[in-house]
Amino acid sequence: MDTQAETFPVSADDVRAAADLIRGDVLRTPLIPAPRLSELTGADVFVKYENLQVTNSFKDRGALVKLLSLSEADRRRGVIAMSAGNHAQSVAYHSARLGVPAVIVMPETTPYVKVGNTEALGAEVVLSGATLADSRGRMEEISAERQLTLVHPYDDTHIIAGQGTVALEVLDDQPELDVLVIPIGGGGLIAGSAIAAKAVRPEIEIVGVEAALFPSMYHAVRGETGECGGQTLAEGIAVKMPGELTVPIVKALVSEIVLVDEETIERAICVFASLQKTMAEGAGAAGLAAMLARPDAFAGRKVGLYLCGGNIDPRVLASVIVRGLGREGKIVSLRITISDQPGMLGRIASLLGEERANILEVSHRRMFLDVPAKGATLDLMIETKDRAHARQVMARLADEGFPPRELESPGGREIAAD
Amino acid sequence: MDTQAETFPVSADDVRAAADLIRGDVLRTPLIPAPRLSELTGADVFVKYENLQVTNSFKDRGALVKLLSLSEADRRRGVIAMSAGNHAQSVAYHSARLGVPAVIVMPETTPYVKVGNTEALGAEVVLSGATLADSRGRMEEISAERQLTLVHPYDDTHIIAGQGTVALEVLDDQPELDVLVIPIGGGGLIAGSAIAAKAVRPEIEIVGVEAALFPSMYHAVRGETGECGGQTLAEGIAVKMPGELTVPIVKALVSEIVLVDEETIERAICVFASLQKTMAEGAGAAGLAAMLARPDAFAGRKVGLYLCGGNIDPRVLASVIVRGLGREGKIVSLRITISDQPGMLGRIASLLGEERANILEVSHRRMFLDVPAKGATLDLMIETKDRAHARQVMARLADEGFPPRELESPGGREIAAD
Repeated sequence: MDTQAETFPVSADDVRAAADLIRGDVLRTPLIPAPRLSELTGADVFVKYENLQVTNSFKDRGALVKLLSLSEADRRRGVIAMSAGNHAQSVAYHSARLGVPAVIVMPETTPYVKVGNTEALGAEVVLSGATLADSRGRMEEISAERQLTLVHPYDDTHIIAGQGTVALEVLDDQPELDVLVIPIGGGGLIAGSAIAAKAVRPEIEIVGVEAALFPSMYHAVRGETGECGGQTLAEGIAVKMPGELTVPIVKALVSEIVLVDEETIERAICVFASLQKTMAEGAGAAGLAAMLARPDAFAGRKVGLYLCGGNIDPRVLASVIVRGLGREGKIVSLRITISDQPGMLGRIASLLGEERANILEVSHRRMFLDVPAKGATLDLMIETKDRAHARQVMARLADEGFPPRELESPGGREIAAD
Repeated sequence: MDTQAETFPVSADDVRAAADLIRGDVLRTPLIPAPRLSELTGADVFVKYENLQVTNSFKDRGALVKLLSLSEADRRRGVIAMSAGNHAQSVAYHSARLGVPAVIVMPETTPYVKVGNTEALGAEVVLSGATLADSRGRMEEISAERQLTLVHPYDDTHIIAGQGTVALEVLDDQPELDVLVIPIGGGGLIAGSAIAAKAVRPEIEIVGVEAALFPSMYHAVRGETGECGGQTLAEGIAVKMPGELTVPIVKALVSEIVLVDEETIERAICVFASLQKTMAEGAGAAGLAAMLARPDAFAGRKVGLYLCGGNIDPRVLASVIVRGLGREGKIVSLRITISDQPGMLGRIASLLGEERANILEVSHRRMFLDVPAKGATLDLMIETKDRAHARQVMARLADEGFPPRELESPGGREIAAD
C-alpha cells in the first residue's frame, strides 16, 4: 500500500482531514453487533447505521466536505446538484445550514415525496428532462447563468474523502474487522472507505456490491462494457457511469464485486425490517443482500456491513413487508369455488378456525355472468404459521370438499397442497 | 433525594450493580440527537434506540439481571414467565444463552408470529387461557409442578434495577438532559430509570406516558380506580395492574403522566418510520406521542426520549404507513360515477396526468344491479403532493364533469374539494 499516496488523488490523510472537518455537524453513526444477522449469515456481523444520519444516508458526509471546501465567494453564489435521491437531500440540508443557496435539478418524473423532501430542506428544485441524463443540459445552463459550483455525487476528491470517513469510524469502533461490505453506485463511498480502511488496517478486505441490473463498476474494473438498466429496488446505486476518479481506486483496492439480484435485495430489506427493526432502502440493503447471496465468502469472518441509506418509499416498504410474509408462507391467498348455497362461507370459516388459520381478508363474489354454474368464488387471504401449516390447511379444505387454488401469493411463490 | 435509599426497595447502587452485571451481554444502545424530531416538537430531542436490542426491546436488561440473580440449583430447574410480548422474548433469549430451561405461558389467541419468535429463541411455549389473566392458573400449576422460578415482567427488584440501566447510559451520553420521557406499562422501566436518573442528576424531570385506554398507573398514583381496556396499538404498555413495588416509586419521582390517544400513538409510529427510518411498536412510540400531544411541556428543553421497543407486527406497520400517507393527503381514494361509455376511463386518467396526480389503483365496475342508471363506478386511489394538491385535483375533475366523492381515506380524514 506504500504507493497509494502517489497513485490516488485522495489519500488517507485527506479522509482524516475530512473527518476533522465534519465532526459535530455530521452524525457519528453507531456500529452495532447484530447477533441475529450473524446467525442468519454465519458471519460475525456489525452494522454501520448510516440510515440514522439526519437525511438518512451517508451522503451528508461528502456533501458537507465539499461545501466547506468552497471559497466565500463561491458559497455566496451557491451550488447546484443533479439528483433525485439522497445526494439531493444532503446537499440541500447542509447548504441551508451553512446559508449557501442550492439548486437541485431533478427529472420531471421524480415522485412528489422526493421533490417535497428536498424543498422542505430549503433547496430550489428545478424539474427538467425525462431522465437524469436529460436533466444535465438544463443543469449546465443554470450553472453557467448563475455561476453555481457543481456538487458532483461521487467524482470529486472532496466527496470521496468525505464518504471515506465512514470507514474510519467503523474501524475505530471495531479495529479487528476482516472485511467491509460496501454498496457501489458511482463508487465514492467504497473508494474513500477503501483508502481509509487500508491505511488503518492493510490486511482488511473490501468487498463491493452492485445491483445485477446495473453492474457498471463490475464491468469498468474489467475494462469491459456491458448492459445497465431495468427497474431496480436499489435506485441509489443504479448508476450507469462510475466515476473517473473512483474506478482506478476500486480496481486497486477492492477484492471482489458481488452482483445481487432484485429478489435478494428485497429479501435483505425484509430482514433489516424484521430482525433489526430498521428501514433500509434497496441500495442500503445491498450489502446484506451480498452476504445472503454469497454466505461462503463471509462465513466465520468479522464483517463490517454498511447500511448506507434508509430512504425507501413508505409504500414500497409496506409492499415489500407483505410480500415477505407471503414468501415465508405466513400469508396465503386462496380461491375456492363453491356452490351458491347459504352457510358455505360459515362452514369454510369454521374449518379455518379449527386449523388455527387466521382470516385476514375475504371476498365473496357471486358469478353473475356464469349462470349455468350458479356458483360463487370465495377469495381468502389467511395467516398461517409457516409453509407447512399452509399446506396442512389447504389439504384439510380439499378433504372437506373445498379444494382451494392458491392465488399468486404476495411473494410470488406457490405452496403445493399435499 | 437523601431519603431515597431508605424509602425504595431498589437503590441507585442496585442499578449501577445491574449495569456492571449485564455489561457486554446486553447492548449499550446508542442515544442519538434527532434534529428532525426537534424541529417537529420544538424540543431538543435525543432518542435512546432500545429497539436495537437483540430482541428489540429494553426487556433484555431486567430479564438478564433476574436470571443472573438465581442460584445454581434454581437455574438448573429453570424459569417461567407469562407474556405474549417482549418480556417473553427477552426471558427466552437470555435463558437459552445461559442454558436455563424456560417455559413461557401465553394466551391461546397469541398470534403465530409471537409464538414462533419465542420458540425460535429456544423457550418452551405453553398456550393456555383466552387472555393473559386466564393463563395465570396454568402458569402457577406448571411452576409448582416443576419448581420453576417466576420471572415477573415488572414487580421484582432485579427487574426494576435492570431496566434502570437505560437511564444510566442515557445520562452518561448526555449529562445535561432536562427531562426523560418514558412509557409506563407495569412501571418497571420508569421506576428503575427514575431512581438511577435522580441519583445522577437530581434536578432531572421524569415524565411518564400511558395509553389513554390503559391509564392504570395514572389512577394508581392518585389512589383512584378507573377503567382500563380496549384495542390499543400500544399492547406493550396495556397493563391493567401496575406493580406493588413500582407505584410508590412512580408516585414519588415522576412529575407527570401523559395519557396518549390511539391516533397520536399511530402518528408517532409513522414519524419514527418516516423521519428516523426506524420501527417503533406502539408502546415504543408512546414517548414521542406524548411530545406530539403536549409540545408545550417540552418546548426548548433537552429531552431524552425512550424508543423502548420495535416489535410491531409487520402487517400493522404496513397499514399504519399507508394510513399515514392518507392523513397527509398524499394518498386519496375517490369514487366517480360515470356513464358507461367507451373512453371515459381514458379521459379521466388523462386529466389526472395533466394535474400530475399519480394513479396507484383503479377499480372500474359496471353496476349490474342498477340497470336504469346504466352507469359504472370508478374507484381511484391516487398519489398527490399534499392536501392542497388533492383539493386542486378534485376541483379539476368536478369542473370537467366528473365530480368525485372522496372515499374514506386511509387516514380517516376527508379532504373537501373547494
